[in-house]
Amino acid sequence: MPLMKSWLDSANAETCDFPLNNLPYGVFSVGEDEPRCGVAIGDMILDVTAAEEEGLIDLVDEPLFAAPYWNDLMEEGPAVWAAFRARVTALLEEGSEEREKVAPLLVPMAGAQMHLPFVVSEYTDFYAGRHHAYNVGCMFRGPENALPPNWLHMPIGYNGRASSVCVSGTAVRRPWGQLKSPDQDRPAFLPSRRFDFELEMGAIVGTPSDGPLTVAGAEAHIFGYVLLNDWSARDIQAWEYQPLGPFQAKATATSISPWIVTKAALEPFRADTPEREVELLDHLKDDGPGLYDISLEVTLAPDGKAPTTLSRTNYREMYYSAAQQLAHHTTAGSPMHAGDLLGSGTISGPTKPERGSLLELSWGGKEPLTLDTGEERSFLQDGDTLTLAGHAQGDGYRIGFGTCSGTILTALEDPFA
Amino acid sequence: MPLMKSWLDSANAETCDFPLNNLPYGVFSVGEDEPRCGVAIGDMILDVTAAEEEGLIDLVDEPLFAAPYWNDLMEEGPAVWAAFRARVTALLEEGSEEREKVAPLLVPMAGAQMHLPFVVSEYTDFYAGRHHAYNVGCMFRGPENALPPNWLHMPIGYNGRASSVCVSGTAVRRPWGQLKSPDQDRPAFLPSRRFDFELEMGAIVGTPSDGPLTVAGAEAHIFGYVLLNDWSARDIQAWEYQPLGPFQAKATATSISPWIVTKAALEPFRADTPEREVELLDHLKDDGPGLYDISLEVTLAPDGKAPTTLSRTNYREMYYSAAQQLAHHTTAGSPMHAGDLLGSGTISGPTKPERGSLLELSWGGKEPLTLDTGEERSFLQDGDTLTLAGHAQGDGYRIGFGTCSGTILTALEDPFA
Repeated sequence: MPLMKSWLDSANAETCDFPLNNLPYGVFSVGEDEPRCGVAIGDMILDVTAAEEEGLIDLVDEPLFAAPYWNDLMEEGPAVWAAFRARVTALLEEGSEEREKVAPLLVPMAGAQMHLPFVVSEYTDFYAGRHHAYNVGCMFRGPENALPPNWLHMPIGYNGRASSVCVSGTAVRRPWGQLKSPDQDRPAFLPSRRFDFELEMGAIVGTPSDGPLTVAGAEAHIFGYVLLNDWSARDIQAWEYQPLGPFQAKATATSISPWIVTKAALEPFRADTPEREVELLDHLKDDGPGLYDISLEVTLAPDGKAPTTLSRTNYREMYYSAAQQLAHHTTAGSPMHAGDLLGSGTISGPTKPERGSLLELSWGGKEPLTLDTGEERSFLQDGDTLTLAGHAQGDGYRIGFGTCSGTILTALEDPFA
Repeated sequence: MPLMKSWLDSANAETCDFPLNNLPYGVFSVGEDEPRCGVAIGDMILDVTAAEEEGLIDLVDEPLFAAPYWNDLMEEGPAVWAAFRARVTALLEEGSEEREKVAPLLVPMAGAQMHLPFVVSEYTDFYAGRHHAYNVGCMFRGPENALPPNWLHMPIGYNGRASSVCVSGTAVRRPWGQLKSPDQDRPAFLPSRRFDFELEMGAIVGTPSDGPLTVAGAEAHIFGYVLLNDWSARDIQAWEYQPLGPFQAKATATSISPWIVTKAALEPFRADTPEREVELLDHLKDDGPGLYDISLEVTLAPDGKAPTTLSRTNYREMYYSAAQQLAHHTTAGSPMHAGDLLGSGTISGPTKPERGSLLELSWGGKEPLTLDTGEERSFLQDGDTLTLAGHAQGDGYRIGFGTCSGTILTALEDPFA
């Protein structure tokens, strides 16, 4: 598919994240105004709350964008999603007869504050990247037991904390927690010393369900994708995670990029999951290419300094797709709701510069990285800004996710003060 | 504290679960009417939505009971909780001058349908009963490694699935899942054969928080308690739970009793946590007696047959209180919301007839129980109705929780049909 041209010039630039082909969904505010729903186009945001109020968008009986989140549209299901996308495309495409009415509803992105684009109903995080699971397993359990016996048979996941999810740009306070190194007799309560990021994609459930879904069924329920950073305190995790999994290690924050990129925008970039090492059970088998070719990049900027690229990888590296994860998630009958967020799991490629966490990049702190500034890093330091970016590359255009970033604040001196 | 007398005779009976001392909060409906908020008193329900509409309850500027859940009151915090309780007590106590106005607002409990009493914001389940953790650890990891090294230092917990929470009386469909016994090469997708209950209490967070809480601080945020059955598919759990904890094994359903018993009602029944086997870190130390003396009972009734008592135990058997659990839950900075539900973990006493799950009672199926009907049980069978009950015993009265029950439905023939 070629670039779809918009009457807004900035949307037609080859390196623009938000051409007419993309049209991702966010929530923004300007100054002290209340947050509103918006669609990114070029360097502007189309105020769809205003467009709906003015009758330019009129899809169902009830208003869909009166509240500052996209859950109401998500609930409507694929037919309304498609109608909305077609309508916004018609408003913004080159030659649109409604250009005069639409132009006043465009807000410069540079002056807008972004908010969480949807109410996170529940948050689940998976562990479904092959190279990450192997790397972490090596460090925690040794190379013989690196991959748990169940790993090749199902997307291993755990329920996360929805209240931890925040939008890109939110500062992240280094957490306190129980830490105990193997040479200590008892734990101590201290600020985490091994605070880390995890490069992930988040898939967002749109239409609700109430029973087991096939992979094809699950695919139809997914609304779109964001970049996701599953901030992780490795020292808290090491002491707490047996036997019931990560808990406080992952509770501090989970940052997501502000723009929901829709399945429709990503459709031309479909990619297959890797060849199966063991045959999957029928209900988890792929139903067509389940992944996307999305280039991902991680940079780290020490306080006031230039960023260093830590990692470059691709969403194609996942072993399980979001549809396979959602199908597995529903097997025991749990209802899923609009706004459920599924973290892909850390996305690492096969080589060192493709690793999606500092735990892997510094091999548990044994091989510190040297940044372009000359500083060393094993884990994140106070003042560091960690940024994820991602896009699918089309012919002369790209479907961009924007960025997902967070700056590490010093731990509270007394967390209970 | 003696029995507080109500002008409603049924509330003054010695074995009534709902005397004036209790006043638990629920959501009910009659016939096709919309659900409303109600307070249990004797064999009746006071329609507090109606009481508020008629001006008999008028605590804050906004209506608190216009929506069919108690979250709005929870959000208000302890001062409004106390004012509400005092007001309802005044309406229902012996000699109340408002009896004539209140009497028409009483609805017979026998004709009411109960609903979830609050919107479950997020659900967390702990593993904080000493005897249960030891018993399960013995079966899964052997007696030497029964108690994980971290267990005596913090209340181990994991995030559960809020959408799985349902009110007592909801039928529970036996789930399908991946099962693999050690002698099989690969897993199969089948209905669970080892479906079980877990006897727990649920603590409900009232006032929201946004950072680490001390134990005393956490205590002030807790609104009340319910009985909770954490239905568990042991065969799904055994195969999936390493390394990230239980996921689909606990996703089918989590039943809670319909009446929220308040902290105020339970206050006379405070009990200490057991003596510590190792000293806790300061931020997790008890701040006064954190548990309650609540007698608990589990019965199982095969389809159409009389119930057998499976277990009798007490909430005092917990190693960690709900306040300790909530304090631990907030250490890494995760915000907590009104309606967050914290499962205590399975409550087992030290002897066999005090065990809170079939896994423990039948020792993993090796020692099947014989029911009073003569039938054997290792795990739940289709048609079984499992019921939890609990009360705190006062002098001539009791603070009852009512019951928490569910009947097992046959697994779907084809879960994807």
